[in-house]
Amino acid sequence: MGSLGSHYEEENSSSNTANPLNPEEFRRQGHMIIDFIADYYQNMEKYPVLSQVQPGYLAKLLPKSALNIPEPIETILHDIQQYIIPGITHWESPNYFAYFPTSSSIAGFLGEVLSTGFNVVGFNWISSPAATELEFVTMDWLGQMLGLPQSFIFSGVGGGVIQGTTCEAILCTLVAARDQMLAKVGRENIGKLVIYGSDQTHCALLKAAKVAGLECKNFRAIKTMRSTAFQLSAESLRTTIRLDVEAGLIPAFLCATIGTTSTTAVDPIRSLSEVTKEYGMWIHVDAGYARSACICPEYRHFIDGVENVNSFSFNAHKWFFTTLDCCCLWVKDPGALTKSLSTSPEYLKNNASDSKQVVDYKDWQITLSRRFRSMKLWLVLRSYGVENLRNFLRSHVKMAKRFQQLVESDNRFEVVVPRNFAMANAQHFNRNLLETMNASGKVFMTHTIVEGIYVIRFAVGATLTEDKHVIKAWEVVQETVDDMLATK
Amino acid sequence: MGSLGSHYEEENSSSNTANPLNPEEFRRQGHMIIDFIADYYQNMEKYPVLSQVQPGYLAKLLPKSALNIPEPIETILHDIQQYIIPGITHWESPNYFAYFPTSSSIAGFLGEVLSTGFNVVGFNWISSPAATELEFVTMDWLGQMLGLPQSFIFSGVGGGVIQGTTCEAILCTLVAARDQMLAKVGRENIGKLVIYGSDQTHCALLKAAKVAGLECKNFRAIKTMRSTAFQLSAESLRTTIRLDVEAGLIPAFLCATIGTTSTTAVDPIRSLSEVTKEYGMWIHVDAGYARSACICPEYRHFIDGVENVNSFSFNAHKWFFTTLDCCCLWVKDPGALTKSLSTSPEYLKNNASDSKQVVDYKDWQITLSRRFRSMKLWLVLRSYGVENLRNFLRSHVKMAKRFQQLVESDNRFEVVVPRNFAMANAQHFNRNLLETMNASGKVFMTHTIVEGIYVIRFAVGATLTEDKHVIKAWEVVQETVDDMLATK
Repeated sequence: MGSLGSHYEEENSSSNTANPLNPEEFRRQGHMIIDFIADYYQNMEKYPVLSQVQPGYLAKLLPKSALNIPEPIETILHDIQQYIIPGITHWESPNYFAYFPTSSSIAGFLGEVLSTGFNVVGFNWISSPAATELEFVTMDWLGQMLGLPQSFIFSGVGGGVIQGTTCEAILCTLVAARDQMLAKVGRENIGKLVIYGSDQTHCALLKAAKVAGLECKNFRAIKTMRSTAFQLSAESLRTTIRLDVEAGLIPAFLCATIGTTSTTAVDPIRSLSEVTKEYGMWIHVDAGYARSACICPEYRHFIDGVENVNSFSFNAHKWFFTTLDCCCLWVKDPGALTKSLSTSPEYLKNNASDSKQVVDYKDWQITLSRRFRSMKLWLVLRSYGVENLRNFLRSHVKMAKRFQQLVESDNRFEVVVPRNFAMANAQHFNRNLLETMNASGKVFMTHTIVEGIYVIRFAVGATLTEDKHVIKAWEVVQETVDDMLATK
Repeated sequence: MGSLGSHYEEENSSSNTANPLNPEEFRRQGHMIIDFIADYYQNMEKYPVLSQVQPGYLAKLLPKSALNIPEPIETILHDIQQYIIPGITHWESPNYFAYFPTSSSIAGFLGEVLSTGFNVVGFNWISSPAATELEFVTMDWLGQMLGLPQSFIFSGVGGGVIQGTTCEAILCTLVAARDQMLAKVGRENIGKLVIYGSDQTHCALLKAAKVAGLECKNFRAIKTMRSTAFQLSAESLRTTIRLDVEAGLIPAFLCATIGTTSTTAVDPIRSLSEVTKEYGMWIHVDAGYARSACICPEYRHFIDGVENVNSFSFNAHKWFFTTLDCCCLWVKDPGALTKSLSTSPEYLKNNASDSKQVVDYKDWQITLSRRFRSMKLWLVLRSYGVENLRNFLRSHVKMAKRFQQLVESDNRFEVVVPRNFAMANAQHFNRNLLETMNASGKVFMTHTIVEGIYVIRFAVGATLTEDKHVIKAWEVVQETVDDMLATK
């Protein structure tokens, strides 16, 4: 089997029995993979940042079915270089400014590799105590860095959990909120529950509402305006809720956002939470992208009022140096989560869980099995230290600011909304500009539409990005516009 | 920031600016981590397989908050050795026979490491075409290996997707089934939908039903019996459904299982699917653990009738050499999934998606962001080849068979149900036996209760397990029983 020890000598042998976890072969191939990835980073700028392949390209290059015989790692790595890398959009490229970038790091990578090496399935405490305990230690550390009130951390009365993505964090809290409300008003009223966000809220909220069995017609995407920087106002929320209550509906959940996807708008948590409190609703804060910045004292004000919310989440894999996936969720009342998400089949029972002295994270999330995700977050915090992490975020903000100034200096463009974090934006009247730039392979940016305006987003966050890449990106923008005007 | 280039020289510097993805430093630290993990595998048998720490052990060993200054990787690895490894339950240990083991492999590990290195967020095709295209190529390869009908694979009319875990696969299909049925009967009838499984079905089904907003009182865990090897019979299903229909309820979803968690029971798919067809219900097959075996012709009969079901899933991270997480889900009608799970915000729009020529996997799952999981599955298929994979599974089955024979040869024990795959079981009247064995650190097994009988489960699947470990495990069982009898 496995054939790792010897298939180089006897390539067609099928009766080969080396163990597929043989430590010496693991070491040999492991070192090869590290060099392969280090070379990839070193050569990154040679590749077009946005993949230039056509739909269906890969199936044409690969066999129609799996082979019976083993292939050596050398052949496989050769194929990855030849066939896979051209199909990759290089999220780690310094010229990547699309969506929200993923700020990877050596420490984040190493943490993921270690957790893959241990390969523990940490559904409950006993299945690997270190996986559970490191998670709550790390979540408390991070909670303190963000200046969270004691009510959200384990050393207080709340607690944190690492989910995969914001979608899961929102779904878990929405399910908890739904069940809490239905326990009061009766389960038969599920069709009357109303979910609120703004027209800028991430699509994860609508998706979660659909998965949770709530009615699409009871989903409110409250209108925001450019004149108020696309913030959700407490007044609009209150007006919408009143109409719903008058119509016999039941307000259940609000998702407020710190740093929306389109324009990094910041909803005013304090005033919104006053409204939700009046109606006994759950308020979740999705700070998916922007929360990282709040470890810097000068940005902490963006989460003022956080002590009044029920839960909030942010993606450490977006702008906090871990690799995908790592979404940090804190809740004030872990019992609300576990009430909705607990299961206790006989085959998982054990003395530690029965003692109630331990956390079984399977009851805090959608899935049973879970990876040892805290390892990468812990390595990031320790390898860089708090002060360096702050400075690195500040350097990204500075680069975005620089880009915004460049946009402002060119009267063919207009900044649509003021920059809050590390994303700048620009309005330009020709929609082809973006496609032409991305097709060049020199940069990758994406767009949005707000109040009917087509906006180019420029998000700084890829770890390898330096000032020179921002300057170059602006040159690409200008050259492309010049060419397009010349062609006209 | 990051300080990776130089904090060994200037450990207290905080104004250090080396990039946290510096390729040379990546290479240096990457090699260190590979050696660390190779050493861990080499020393594996020195560690107690079940962690022996007490609740709360870790917080006492670590600082109360994150440090301001960076720490070198050497210090961190030292702490992992000292503080983390003692808290790990060693799923990769050859003496691990608990739950269902995770069969890791070098190829699975390397695939995960590569995907972490690329760190792409493959929510849609354009975000990294190779991530999407390799996924459907690999899922088709695997579909063919399992002898799936064309109706489930992309080269036919269906398709496969890699989810994280069975919980997600069941939730996605349940939501699709729910919405399909509600489209017929009206959304106001959500409280009438009924979900079926057996009393042996994995707890993921009940959890998914709760998340999806279905009523717990409409969840049927149909009784199975030891005399019929804990299979769900078509007769019991039909009887239960009839009563529900008479009571005005609406049968919506059946989850059948190939290889249940407690006893690896196999539900008869063909006869069950005849019943679900009569009632227009969705039938999902959860072959979480056992499906891998079906790549061997001699086990293929376990999924006879699979052409009649709507969807099925199995965990490649359980008994198919990838690392956690990797759950393969095939569906006959991808449209049913995407109808329930699609979102299309402006900021994700792109020409490729608009062309409808590509798959956007975000619409096949709960979350938006997704890792490049097909890489590890592809590496496993290529590195080992089909024939070796079959032989390796057969070697596990043989070891479990051996253990069962040993149990049968000792009249203090009884085999509770015949072995189907690589899990044996034993009844013993003293519940302390298991706890005493596990506390020894020599083996880790878990238990279940079926028909009131306390059963010890012995699951073979950890990649490093060889015949000698099975023999040793049986010696541990016998010695522990002898000691317990002697003490009495």
